[in-house]
Amino acid sequence: MIGRLNHIAIAVPDLDAAAAKYRDQLGARIGMQQPLPEHGVTVVFIDTGNTKVELLEPLGEGSPIAAFLEKNPGGGMHHVCFEVADLAAAIARLQQAGARVLGDGRPRTGAHGNPVVFLHPRDFDGTLIELEETGS
Amino acid sequence: MIGRLNHIAIAVPDLDAAAAKYRDQLGARIGMQQPLPEHGVTVVFIDTGNTKVELLEPLGEGSPIAAFLEKNPGGGMHHVCFEVADLAAAIARLQQAGARVLGDGRPRTGAHGNPVVFLHPRDFDGTLIELEETGS
Repeated sequence: MIGRLNHIAIAVPDLDAAAAKYRDQLGARIGMQQPLPEHGVTVVFIDTGNTKVELLEPLGEGSPIAAFLEKNPGGGMHHVCFEVADLAAAIARLQQAGARVLGDGRPRTGAHGNPVVFLHPRDFDGTLIELEETGS
Repeated sequence: MIGRLNHIAIAVPDLDAAAAKYRDQLGARIGMQQPLPEHGVTVVFIDTGNTKVELLEPLGEGSPIAAFLEKNPGGGMHHVCFEVADLAAAIARLQQAGARVLGDGRPRTGAHGNPVVFLHPRDFDGTLIELEETGS
């Protein structure tokens, strides 16, 4: 079912500073800052060749990462995203097994324009898992 | 400098249960349990095609993930590992920029038999970063 690891997301308190560290100290290829107001974050993508790291900073009111940063003011690994070919089938299989899909259980449009859901971290060892239907 | 994302590691309190969830609920391709007593963990690899997820359970006394699981009894994302071609050069660049290499600052042999170092999570937004010299 799950395919490629699409990205890992790291919530950071200061996106400029975080991106500069990845660029200057780790020599990473970083992209431009992209404000995504409809998702409540500003993001910088890091291309590692085989996958991506996303640095996320809260944007606006009610950012989905605000509570995480209140609990972890220095930042931290926020979630991991796996690709799936058929999100509806994935949701059905997970819910049948008792795993909880966050929100109303229906896909919404994620930051890359594809349908996504998030799974409850308590059902997966404290790890917030995003599933993204990539259509591949 | 940093190249491919080699793996992300998730610390779990019950490796059997965690691996079964990834296999049965997420349909992941999981490997056999591998006890690595010299690293204080038992590991299950999940091959995502482009990279790996490592599920880690403490093994023996003084496991390097014991303190993390005491703080996060339900488990959680523990570290992310990036590949580098020249670890000595990477360490020099990082230390020049003021980043802290854990331990005595020298590479040790990691779980895959390659030289590795870990960077202080406070220097990278609460993220524990492993650098692995893959010789590629």
